[in-house]
Formats: sequence, structure tokens, C-alpha cells
Amino acid sequence: MSYDGPRVPLTDGLRLDHIGIAVPDLEKALGFWRDQLGATVRGTETVESQGVRVAFLATGDATTELLEPTRDDSPIAKFLSGGRGGIHHITYEVEDIAEKLRELEAGGVPLIHKTPVPGSRGTQIAFLHPKGTGGVLVELVQYAKDE
Amino acid sequence: MSYDGPRVPLTDGLRLDHIGIAVPDLEKALGFWRDQLGATVRGTETVESQGVRVAFLATGDATTELLEPTRDDSPIAKFLSGGRGGIHHITYEVEDIAEKLRELEAGGVPLIHKTPVPGSRGTQIAFLHPKGTGGVLVELVQYAKDE
Repeated sequence: MSYDGPRVPLTDGLRLDHIGIAVPDLEKALGFWRDQLGATVRGTETVESQGVRVAFLATGDATTELLEPTRDDSPIAKFLSGGRGGIHHITYEVEDIAEKLRELEAGGVPLIHKTPVPGSRGTQIAFLHPKGTGGVLVELVQYAKDE
Repeated sequence: MSYDGPRVPLTDGLRLDHIGIAVPDLEKALGFWRDQLGATVRGTETVESQGVRVAFLATGDATTELLEPTRDDSPIAKFLSGGRGGIHHITYEVEDIAEKLRELEAGGVPLIHKTPVPGSRGTQIAFLHPKGTGGVLVELVQYAKDE
């Protein structure tokens, strides 16, 4: 499965990698995003550890990710039950996630993950706490280096 | 002022162009996004017609736009007064915005703008209604063709 779009160089130190949109029903959501808006689905994946089924939409360099909860204790189920719906998080690529987390913590930014945790596709990820970002759930991602 | 990042080709028919984040105080928000997260500010602009002052952050091909209201009747002021904070809209580039709007309307998607309106930098833009998108405010943009 390939769902990565073309990636521009990380010249600015920070690259918007994807946005994650919580949806109660993936098929119904694809009725809009795929069938009406015209996005190509690059792949779908169930991440049991997170309790989500996701679809990755090809939207240029930054991917659009739809997340449907697969069980009631999924973070996405909890998010949707708050009646907020819609955009759940935004994700930025950084060069060195561990260093960036140290910088942020030293600067007083509240972190959900103080050290990186494994993400999909061999990435390392970490979430910042929304109370430090004006209410936005920000994720950082570092891709495995191409050898 | 230049704030466009490198743009990948519109090969998929849909490109995530930017995300718009509503903030009550632009300088305070830059304390996080620029000073702590490390984003470069490509430019700032006041759009009197919309009642906003915006900062464009270089985050790869997809830009991050921070929007601060400049008056109480600004759509961003109204959004923030709802206590939601955070992400206000996401914007996709399309090849032919007028045609896409006709397709969406024919498909029953509720539209805020049935025909494009002028955006910044010579673009044409239109907003879809969140009730058709699962609660996400989606904007479409068509860039002026390079001659």
C-alpha cells in the first residue's frame, strides 16, 4: 500500500504532513471526500492499538487522513462523543523529533509524549498538549531516514 | 511579500493548500508557532474586508495560516467567541473551481458560495457548508494560471 504523496524537502524545518479528521462512519465520509470532493484514496488501514480504521486521501504533499473509531474506548470515539466532530489533529514533520521535544519542554510547552513513540510506517511520533497550542492537537513526526 | 511554499503538481486533482487556525492574539500565538515550534513566518497581512490579520507560516507545501480578528464582527471573532478555538478551516486547491462547485451542487453538497469569490493573491475561492462535510469548514481555491 502506498499513500505517501510527493514530499517537498524539509527546507523550513517543519512540514505539514497530514491532517486527521475524525468521522463516525468511514464509508459515509468517503461519500463526501472521495465521491463528491474527488479525492483519491491511497490506502486504508486498521490500527488496532489505536482503535481506528483510517483512510489516507491523496491531497498533494500533505495527506488528509480520515479516522473512524473501531471501539468505544478509542481516542477518536471519545473525541466524537464530545460532539465536536471534524478536525482532530494536525501533524508536522520535523528533522529530529527527540531534540525538538527537548527544546519544547525546556521552553515550557506541555507535552503528551515527552519522548517519541512508534508511529505507522516506521515513523516516530509525539503529541503536544492542546493547552499549549491554543486548543490545537499538534502531532510531530520524524520519518525513518532513507539509507 | 512571499509566503508560498514550494507547490507540488496538482496531479491528484486536489491539493491541501493551507490550514487556517483562529487565534485571539497573533503575537501570543507566534510565541508558540514561531518561537517554540520553530516555524518561519513568511509574511503577515491585514485583510480589512474579512476583519482579520493573518500570518503565513512556512510549513512545506501546505501553509499554516494564523488568523486574528481585527474587529468584533469578524467571522474569526465569532468563531472564537463560540469557545471552540483552534482550527477554523482547511483549504484545497482544485484545477477548475467553478466546475467543481457545479459538480458538488449537482451532488447535493451544501455550499456557502455557489460561485467563486475573489481571494487573496489573485485566487478564486469558495467555502462549502460544514453540514455537508461532517463539521469541517472546507475552502476551495483556484490559483491564477501562470501565463
